[in-house]
Amino acid sequence: MPYVNIKITREGATAEQKAELIRGVTSLLADVLGKNPQTTVVVIEEVETDNWGIGGETVTARRRAER
Amino acid sequence: MPYVNIKITREGATAEQKAELIRGVTSLLADVLGKNPQTTVVVIEEVETDNWGIGGETVTARRRAER
Amino acid sequence: MPYVNIKITREGATAEQKAELIRGVTSLLADVLGKNPQTTVVVIEEVETDNWGIGGETVTARRRAER
Amino acid sequence: MPYVNIKITREGATAEQKAELIRGVTSLLADVLGKNPQTTVVVIEEVETDNWGIGGETVTARRRAER
Amino acid sequence: MPYVNIKITREGATAEQKAELIRGVTSLLADVLGKNPQTTVVVIEEVETDNWGIGGETVTARRRAER
Amino acid sequence: MPYVNIKITREGATAEQKAELIRGVTSLLADVLGKNPQTTVVVIEEVETDNWGIGGETVTARRRAER
Repeated sequence: MPYVNIKITREGATAEQKAELIRGVTSLLADVLGKNPQTTVVVIEEVETDNWGIGGETVTARRRAER
Repeated sequence: MPYVNIKITREGATAEQKAELIRGVTSLLADVLGKNPQTTVVVIEEVETDNWGIGGETVTARRRAER
Repeated sequence: MPYVNIKITREGATAEQKAELIRGVTSLLADVLGKNPQTTVVVIEEVETDNWGIGGETVTARRRAER
Repeated sequence: MPYVNIKITREGATAEQKAELIRGVTSLLADVLGKNPQTTVVVIEEVETDNWGIGGETVTARRRAER
Repeated sequence: MPYVNIKITREGATAEQKAELIRGVTSLLADVLGKNPQTTVVVIEEVETDNWGIGGETVTARRRAER
Repeated sequence: MPYVNIKITREGATAEQKAELIRGVTSLLADVLGKNPQTTVVVIEEVETDNWGIGGETVTARRRAER
């Protein structure tokens, strides 16, 4: 019955990668805590880099600086 | 003053249906707990079926299997 | 499959009132959007009045001013 | 290490305004609680006015009534 | 830089089990999406069974019925 | 009308510090985006260090290592 919310920046995760995250987190909760996979809910949210901040600046600004 | 967050898969909920959810949840909190409707906030988030997992697989995969 | 998160201040909601909220929100999602009640998840979070702000001040301060 | 989630209606916030929010919240947590800015995460979510309710009605309906 | 929020019912998860969840989710995000473990944040929330609903009833009521 | 959720580790933030965060975030949203302070909601959640992970380990483990 767990509920898992994963937030990542929107930078091209594929449908297959997202399916793999969902499979992996659901298994982990079954393995570690014995949670029933049938009622484990996982929601992935992809956030624009303009809307994600770390270290006081947006990821957009960090990506630009890294180049 | 309650804050309610409703997450559903993005599968065609109309503006009228969303308005009805907002009305309904706000009334429910007033009826059950006496909460002031004027300051009750409801936020609906619609999530792509690729990004929603249950039972270890995406809703996209489940919808495909149901057909 | 919807997921609903309800945040309220911790001010004495009873177990019965919380059960009523859960029943009510689950019915609402079934009635308005045809969502399956069996997989509708509702999580209620009760927050201390010191940790809830509205209008720039805590609910603790507002309750004190109301007296 | 704090995590801050800011939800606003999608009504034209610019990239510069969002960067300013991120800077401001990160500074505030450093000033008030001594939190390390390097690991402070801020995520801004912009929500359609059809999906945001207050006072039992959508922001879309309120904006229309205000005109 | 991902942020993961895991909500489970408060039913005796140990500190070691929670540490294992944190390790596991962090690895998964590194393996599947190449995310940097150093900035991956995981927050576990344990929710009273009175405050968690599924199928329109609280987990407290379901646990009682299962006995 | 914004909604802000601030999650920090539970490590002794005082009621006054939390009130200051609420005041500060509410002002910031008014200054940067012209949001009405009267309907700005801020919820602070304090999370046990066993339940907060960064870099794949709990904050409890990190605090122990820092000593």
